[in-house]
Amino acid sequence: MHRFKYIGRSLFCEKVKVSDIAAKVGTPLYVYSRNTLLDHYAKIKEAFASVSPLICFSVKSNSNLSVLRALVKAGAGVDIVSGGELYRAKLAGAPPERVVYAGVGKRRDEIMDAIRYGILFFNVESEEELTLVNACAASLGKKVNVAVRINPDVDVSTHDYIKTGKGQTKFGVNFDTAKRIFRSSWKYRNIAIRGVHIHIGSQILNPQPFRRAIKKVLGFLDKNSLLVEYLNIGGGMGVVYSLEKPQTATGFAGKILPLVRKSNLKLILEPGRFIAANSGILVTMVLFRKKNGQKRFIIVDGAMNDLIRPSLYEAYHEILPVTKPRRRASVARYDIVGPVCETGDFLAKNRKMTEPASGDLLAVMGSGAYGYSMSSNYNSRPRAAEVIVDGNKFFVVKKRETYGDLVRGETIR
Amino acid sequence: MHRFKYIGRSLFCEKVKVSDIAAKVGTPLYVYSRNTLLDHYAKIKEAFASVSPLICFSVKSNSNLSVLRALVKAGAGVDIVSGGELYRAKLAGAPPERVVYAGVGKRRDEIMDAIRYGILFFNVESEEELTLVNACAASLGKKVNVAVRINPDVDVSTHDYIKTGKGQTKFGVNFDTAKRIFRSSWKYRNIAIRGVHIHIGSQILNPQPFRRAIKKVLGFLDKNSLLVEYLNIGGGMGVVYSLEKPQTATGFAGKILPLVRKSNLKLILEPGRFIAANSGILVTMVLFRKKNGQKRFIIVDGAMNDLIRPSLYEAYHEILPVTKPRRRASVARYDIVGPVCETGDFLAKNRKMTEPASGDLLAVMGSGAYGYSMSSNYNSRPRAAEVIVDGNKFFVVKKRETYGDLVRGETIR
Repeated sequence: MHRFKYIGRSLFCEKVKVSDIAAKVGTPLYVYSRNTLLDHYAKIKEAFASVSPLICFSVKSNSNLSVLRALVKAGAGVDIVSGGELYRAKLAGAPPERVVYAGVGKRRDEIMDAIRYGILFFNVESEEELTLVNACAASLGKKVNVAVRINPDVDVSTHDYIKTGKGQTKFGVNFDTAKRIFRSSWKYRNIAIRGVHIHIGSQILNPQPFRRAIKKVLGFLDKNSLLVEYLNIGGGMGVVYSLEKPQTATGFAGKILPLVRKSNLKLILEPGRFIAANSGILVTMVLFRKKNGQKRFIIVDGAMNDLIRPSLYEAYHEILPVTKPRRRASVARYDIVGPVCETGDFLAKNRKMTEPASGDLLAVMGSGAYGYSMSSNYNSRPRAAEVIVDGNKFFVVKKRETYGDLVRGETIR
Repeated sequence: MHRFKYIGRSLFCEKVKVSDIAAKVGTPLYVYSRNTLLDHYAKIKEAFASVSPLICFSVKSNSNLSVLRALVKAGAGVDIVSGGELYRAKLAGAPPERVVYAGVGKRRDEIMDAIRYGILFFNVESEEELTLVNACAASLGKKVNVAVRINPDVDVSTHDYIKTGKGQTKFGVNFDTAKRIFRSSWKYRNIAIRGVHIHIGSQILNPQPFRRAIKKVLGFLDKNSLLVEYLNIGGGMGVVYSLEKPQTATGFAGKILPLVRKSNLKLILEPGRFIAANSGILVTMVLFRKKNGQKRFIIVDGAMNDLIRPSLYEAYHEILPVTKPRRRASVARYDIVGPVCETGDFLAKNRKMTEPASGDLLAVMGSGAYGYSMSSNYNSRPRAAEVIVDGNKFFVVKKRETYGDLVRGETIR
């Protein structure tokens, strides 16, 4: 459920015509629906209400300060993975007791910043990291909470690049190492192990691998008589990009809650895509049409530097006209491609659609997660603007970059 | 040939210890060797000296202003693909008559800027683009030069994402369309078709596909009695990342020159990778080591946001210690991975090396092309610093980004 709908021939975000935003702000352009973000957050909250979980929005999926602020004001916590994300979380007003910090490669300065802010806990991913967190805590004269990220070696059906819970990946520690960590926890005098963390991957459409992972981890705690307070089951709930049939938040909760209730642990969830993906679109303008042999191309002003998911993950995004054409003449199959000089620069392939004209606007749906946050200046392209819509109002929350921005910090020697 | 060499146990860039630069500037860090850039440029220039070509450095491969400036001062032109690259070319002092502008999706404002600057010509990639360039030229009361980019439908052996000369890609026009463009050139009153352009792909290690493409295009001009002045054969010459045996510039020229001389056309080359790739390294620091089952990981502070080639193209980069270890104890196979929370975040896989310690520096070789220019702020990671070395001096030519830079232009609504 999202709030991008046609009224007549025009695509609206909430009560604002998308074409009106583009006319004012230009393209390429990200548009987020604040009330869709809040709806998705509320759906998870309600589905899990019986255990009052802490829902930490995954900042890496959409790092925009206004997006973070909206969710934080609604009660969400944040899942961060870097010092830069901590900086954003602070600016967005995230209270420290609602911040959890994951990632395999935390630097000393990042750890120090997070301890000073007083975050809820670190999701620790290796013994060397634990040693460093302990040393940092000691140097500040503090006792610091951690959760041990366990790699439960559960396979899931998703793109290889977004599987994270298999034994062969860099994430977490295996059960043997986890056991060693718990057994030697007395060595880490400035650390309290308060929880376990799992995160098995992204865009997962089936609760079974979550259940298997949770069971394995609870079994491990039980078997070794280990006491913790928190069970952090990470993120990874899939969303609809095309014809997927992901479970609803309620359906997902129905499968997970019995296990959680039995464990008596406080639940933490780290949804990113589930909240943000379908809350945002990338709006792009048609520049040219062309044909090479039998192949037809629509060249738009958005490119892989704006949205890299199609190139990097072979991701599917629905492409809709911002204004529906009056007639269904000349329907054909097109590749929708950007101006970047790479064959890998495409937004969609082989899509059946009515031929648009130069100047027409297209909406790349489901671009609210891992869209702008992964964007770059490749081909010296200034990054897009970001707009947030709330009812009948819209706000530019990130200005379009200028050519001057491209060279900031450079000097010619 | 590049100027990154060990003296004793220390890796040097020209006459500067890489570890000295890292100590001063921090990591992750790009280091470029100015004299390697100039050497590579000179090699191409000498190899093709008999036809005095215009050598246009491909700005997208490395857009750093100091890199551009060094090459422009040595006499190079630039191959640009966007208004942002034109902006950089101007700042680097590239004379307009040495600027060529390619790309399938040029916007009106970008075309206007380029006409005003008086560039040598546009490489035009579609009939709709030609119409727009003509209209822009008319509105400025100018006659504008173009080359027609022809897609010669030649297959090359390289990664799918960097093939550009196959009929199915978005690039250029096929021979039928090219013929129609030449035949109807009278319609474009503000345009002079001065050349033909081909670009068949990247990292091509064999001159044969270049020869085939050039022969096809010259045959087309001949058969249709079309007169032009310029033959732009693009870029794509492969370099050594691992065990490749690419031809030298001289070997390549030896195969290409006979065709070019016979044609009597002025030659344009657009090398990027050939000049920049082995002129730069990414320096990164070891954070942690860890083992998951049998798999060993070295976690470093550089990540896919700094260098996306391994993730995006499965590219191989040699990894060398910045300071060679004294003993060859505990050699094993490691994945070298970054802090970004994606399984796709790796710099190298399964590399045999002596186990480094936390704090050790590693050099990711061959990172001077498509390295920094493709970097992003994913996971809210500030982008790396860039340094250029000239003999025994080094200069920070792009400052490391700060947390403040991450949120510039954002407002909370």
